[in-house]
Amino acid sequence: MSMELPTIRLIKGAAEIIDQVLLPGRYVVRRLQTVDQVCEAIKALRVRGAPALGVTGAYGLLVAVEEKWRGDGAHYFDDKDEDSKGLEEFPADVTVDDVRSLLDSAARTIGETRPTAVNLHWAIDRMAKVYRKNWTSTADMLRALRNEAVAIYREDLEMCRALGRHGAELLEDGAKVITHCNAGGLATSGFGTALGVVFAAVEAGKSVHVYADETRPLLQGARLTAWECIRNKIPVTLLVDGASSSLLSRGDISCAIVGADRIAANGDAANKIGTCNLAVVCHRYGVPFYVAAPSSTIDPSLADGSSIPIEERAADEVTSFAGVQTAPSETDTFNPAFDVTPADLIAGIITERGVLHPPYDFKGGEDAA
Amino acid sequence: MSMELPTIRLIKGAAEIIDQVLLPGRYVVRRLQTVDQVCEAIKALRVRGAPALGVTGAYGLLVAVEEKWRGDGAHYFDDKDEDSKGLEEFPADVTVDDVRSLLDSAARTIGETRPTAVNLHWAIDRMAKVYRKNWTSTADMLRALRNEAVAIYREDLEMCRALGRHGAELLEDGAKVITHCNAGGLATSGFGTALGVVFAAVEAGKSVHVYADETRPLLQGARLTAWECIRNKIPVTLLVDGASSSLLSRGDISCAIVGADRIAANGDAANKIGTCNLAVVCHRYGVPFYVAAPSSTIDPSLADGSSIPIEERAADEVTSFAGVQTAPSETDTFNPAFDVTPADLIAGIITERGVLHPPYDFKGGEDAA
Repeated sequence: MSMELPTIRLIKGAAEIIDQVLLPGRYVVRRLQTVDQVCEAIKALRVRGAPALGVTGAYGLLVAVEEKWRGDGAHYFDDKDEDSKGLEEFPADVTVDDVRSLLDSAARTIGETRPTAVNLHWAIDRMAKVYRKNWTSTADMLRALRNEAVAIYREDLEMCRALGRHGAELLEDGAKVITHCNAGGLATSGFGTALGVVFAAVEAGKSVHVYADETRPLLQGARLTAWECIRNKIPVTLLVDGASSSLLSRGDISCAIVGADRIAANGDAANKIGTCNLAVVCHRYGVPFYVAAPSSTIDPSLADGSSIPIEERAADEVTSFAGVQTAPSETDTFNPAFDVTPADLIAGIITERGVLHPPYDFKGGEDAA
Repeated sequence: MSMELPTIRLIKGAAEIIDQVLLPGRYVVRRLQTVDQVCEAIKALRVRGAPALGVTGAYGLLVAVEEKWRGDGAHYFDDKDEDSKGLEEFPADVTVDDVRSLLDSAARTIGETRPTAVNLHWAIDRMAKVYRKNWTSTADMLRALRNEAVAIYREDLEMCRALGRHGAELLEDGAKVITHCNAGGLATSGFGTALGVVFAAVEAGKSVHVYADETRPLLQGARLTAWECIRNKIPVTLLVDGASSSLLSRGDISCAIVGADRIAANGDAANKIGTCNLAVVCHRYGVPFYVAAPSSTIDPSLADGSSIPIEERAADEVTSFAGVQTAPSETDTFNPAFDVTPADLIAGIITERGVLHPPYDFKGGEDAA
């Protein structure tokens, strides 16, 4: 079985996602056919993970076009329809400006769903560069947009593969790798960043044992990372986030590898809340802490992590679970979705271009990575 | 309203406890009338917290006597029956050896319920010293046992009060204190150790804001610490255990105060899993990390934390919650109930005798504390 997952696909005019809220109990593929559905899926974390959000943003713009001008039973976009033959049915009276106006609005709506992951905005910006070109044919513009979106998807898969190969060189046979949250196939087009490193090492014949932080409040480690490892027959041990000191004090953990949602010019990296705690603990016990992320995650416009916008989420994520109240209902909470790990705690940033080591300096733009 | 809680009482021959598993949803007082019920309540964490476990162990031995020889409607022990008048009804044909034999067996059974908290064994040993004396009268022995058990309870309350007064001197008006797990009234005879410091500071007129780690897997912070603070009208903010770096990086947290289940001769302190992570994070951000515990928690027979026995608990605490599966059922887990914070991360140990500072050296026995 391939280690790749069909996390997000463009099928018959809809973005089809594995609904990650229902895992591991149920494996449900959900068809997103309106901008509202795309936004709901992003906000409710049915689709999450910085690279996967990039693809969702790009496909979401195509969904906006389908929603507005979809014909009876027809569809315009599909990731298998290389020549976009579906566009032959597109209404002839829709102008380039009509589409641009719709896309500007959809881009704004989708872009506002989650502030921290830069990949979502990066992918939407790539699409905007295409539709803002000087088009004379609506069909040509839409064909180019479909190709750009599918390219973002495919490049992400290739990025994961390349990142995995570079990262796998850091792992010895028998490595024990701790990770936080889920930076696996479900967080990307299908292969993963942090877990992609593990998968690539296993594909290269090494044995790897994964230790997964459960990752409160939303338990992506328990629900998604454990599930992906078991699916791929990789031994996995689950622990509560507070148990990492206890685990690392035993002295046999090889390294930590986590994903990232945004990386500032100096290497400070935003990732799921709890990541920085793991980095601090790794530092105490001398365990190398790596960040695995595509270079599109690097935002050279931010000097350091203090300017990364951090999403605050609702109190009930912390005060209740599965409908059961776990704290008095009037309890105040501190519930940021992300934290920022200072660059000095990061032993290396694993990208599709290779493993970068400190000091990090991405001020020159993405190409510096 | 008093800040004290009726966490455990000796009432009409039973140990009455607040069932902490049901909090904060339901406040239920449970009567423990058999050794089996006492052991179940300890193992299921209906009563927990090192000092409270000490009292439970002592009262549990009295429950064993009630269970074996309880008369119709009568009872022998009550914390309000100062002269143990109930013992006038005790069967005259029961010998000192009969009672000793029963208590030896009950002490073993109760002592085996939880291995890490030294206070449980310390309290049982105190009771054993009493019943192993050269008694000629069964009633005299039982009266002395009841008085010893109630003394353990009362000394614990006084200990909390004294500890609270010493600790409160460390807190300025407006202090922001982060804590882990529950070391409040529910963890003791009724006033608390770490939270007792906060309560004492508030009683002394200072304003204090508590930040409570939710404390996975069993959420004592969310369920118990938040509940106690709200009950005592103390502002409390709940966070997931992984969020402490994010919180401390803002620079306005005054200190951390946590309880302990056992402290080795060099000051290494075992406490609820996740405590050491908080200590490591505090060290990174320069926030003083205090342990608050009675001197009975110090075990001078252990040179350092590596010899503290650590209880491993069941996988389903991590793989499910409130009956909902949160990880694939076949997931392996690492689920120690406690971790050990190295003494070098502890700014001070707050005891009923004062605040101790490093280097710690408790080899001379308890009195060294």
